[in-house]
Amino acid sequence: MYKRTVLTIAFAASSLLASGLATEAKKAGLEPIPTDKKELMKLIDNPKNPITDEKVELGKKLYFDPRLSKSGFISCNSCHNLSEGGDDGIPAAIGHKWTANPHHLNSPTVYNSVFFNSQFWDGRDPHLEAQAQGPIQAAPEMSATPEHVVATVTSMPEYVEEFKKAYGKDTKITFEKVADTIATFERTLVTPSAFDDYLNGNEKAMTKAQKDGLKTFMDKGCATCHTGIALGGAMNVFNITGTYKFQDVGDFKGDKNGMVKVPTLRNITQTAPYFHNGQIWELKDAIKEMGRIQLGADINDAEAASIEEFLKALDGRKADVVLPQLPASTSKTPKPDIN
Amino acid sequence: MYKRTVLTIAFAASSLLASGLATEAKKAGLEPIPTDKKELMKLIDNPKNPITDEKVELGKKLYFDPRLSKSGFISCNSCHNLSEGGDDGIPAAIGHKWTANPHHLNSPTVYNSVFFNSQFWDGRDPHLEAQAQGPIQAAPEMSATPEHVVATVTSMPEYVEEFKKAYGKDTKITFEKVADTIATFERTLVTPSAFDDYLNGNEKAMTKAQKDGLKTFMDKGCATCHTGIALGGAMNVFNITGTYKFQDVGDFKGDKNGMVKVPTLRNITQTAPYFHNGQIWELKDAIKEMGRIQLGADINDAEAASIEEFLKALDGRKADVVLPQLPASTSKTPKPDIN
Repeated sequence: MYKRTVLTIAFAASSLLASGLATEAKKAGLEPIPTDKKELMKLIDNPKNPITDEKVELGKKLYFDPRLSKSGFISCNSCHNLSEGGDDGIPAAIGHKWTANPHHLNSPTVYNSVFFNSQFWDGRDPHLEAQAQGPIQAAPEMSATPEHVVATVTSMPEYVEEFKKAYGKDTKITFEKVADTIATFERTLVTPSAFDDYLNGNEKAMTKAQKDGLKTFMDKGCATCHTGIALGGAMNVFNITGTYKFQDVGDFKGDKNGMVKVPTLRNITQTAPYFHNGQIWELKDAIKEMGRIQLGADINDAEAASIEEFLKALDGRKADVVLPQLPASTSKTPKPDIN
Repeated sequence: MYKRTVLTIAFAASSLLASGLATEAKKAGLEPIPTDKKELMKLIDNPKNPITDEKVELGKKLYFDPRLSKSGFISCNSCHNLSEGGDDGIPAAIGHKWTANPHHLNSPTVYNSVFFNSQFWDGRDPHLEAQAQGPIQAAPEMSATPEHVVATVTSMPEYVEEFKKAYGKDTKITFEKVADTIATFERTLVTPSAFDDYLNGNEKAMTKAQKDGLKTFMDKGCATCHTGIALGGAMNVFNITGTYKFQDVGDFKGDKNGMVKVPTLRNITQTAPYFHNGQIWELKDAIKEMGRIQLGADINDAEAASIEEFLKALDGRKADVVLPQLPASTSKTPKPDIN
């Protein structure tokens, strides 16, 4: 009986300690992906473009359809590859005619991008609906015109039928609606991880090394910028702490202050190379470099290794994506143009 | 009672008639994908590279992994896209550095390629295991060396572990084994269709128009070359009936007789543009052109439309492919080289 009481107390104490760390993390601005579906839906839904099953299914097809691009060869998934952590694993995105991104910009992951406050590296829009319109039209990416996209989608009766199901009476297929539909699919690409389980109350979800890493992460000040549910995704904090303004990226000047968005740390072990220009391959190097240029802090090898352990707790569980079967082209479908 | 007898007789007669067509089709060399799993396995398995669940799962990952290519951007699925009828929908394949296939060769579908007697347009090898080695190394395709492929796969512990599971004691990762594993996955990409159901005894599986189209298809002589389970996939028949030797394709001369392989007709509605050089977009035009150049026969519009109806019965049912989650690169993984 005595033994049991001790054990109970010991457990409670450990629980309190651990809860202490979780509480501290939340105070520092780190937030979990909620387990409650209604609560999650509130966070990921867009009242102006509500999530429905029909739009998600249609959006998935459009996301995987290379015929939206001028060449017929590049889809959203080419650079935001759902098999590869949601990005492409190369320093600067490759697009139409094998053009490397002229700003040397690295493709950001699409996973959990719904939690970003800012889309694009220069944070020029807060919504995925606006983001989805960008790469489709950008000359060095998918290089398509809105007219090409609308003509392509409209040429296939199966797509037309699915737009009817998705949008009811308002079925006119527009470029904006195509982007909205893709964004709807992207809004569902949420990957809860051990870190979320931990913040949501499961003390055992993270290892001791990961908890220690979380402490180091907060002690060093990383959570100042890598905050919120996405552990990143906003521009604002740069104004306060940034000492390195990333202006040396060709003709890309970031926002008006010469800054780029704080990327998410979720699934970071799967999205090398790092930084907006994809110039750092090792996570440990990225951690140390961020300490130096953003925090003016020396992060030693042991601390970097500890933080890296924590970051592994951000590897998310990805819902199964069944590869869509795309409708067949018709005689009205615009022909691919690889030039 | 009388009525019922009449109905029974009528049904039997109709059944006999329909069976007559099915029998005729089989006599003409057309074969169904068998419904019996053991029988199917005999047809798709390779005793030298036996199909196992472990190899199929690993092969699927490798099939979708762009890191096997020099650039890190092109996977098998880029040109043999399982969402797009198993090919890429563009006239000549695009590869490394946006190089269009120098022989102007069109990417053939991977679906049902296990049933081909010959792989590659020049039919130089009968096995998918050999085929899988080709595009990975071809300079205008994935442009990788065997050493790059082995180094890439070996650099990721998850792949190494899966090779252990797939090959038991014989776990040394070689380029040949990577190709064998991809081929194992490809061997499972079989798509039974209404035509198979019909040949396997379901009289109602094909519409009347499709059955009429099948008759026209056989009457015109199409089944002479488009024969066997794949309705194509062999070289040999060209020697007998070919009058157009497809030599006018740059420096690609086909086999020693200047010929190219007969492509499969399965899923043909989804794999435009047509012919080895992807120069014809409309199925009806392809049918008429084939009549002219291969059979010396005039196929009129009504006949072409009828044959097209039959070809729709070859649209196959594709098993769900859950997008694989690829292992993360490590510091040992060769870096992508887009040049």
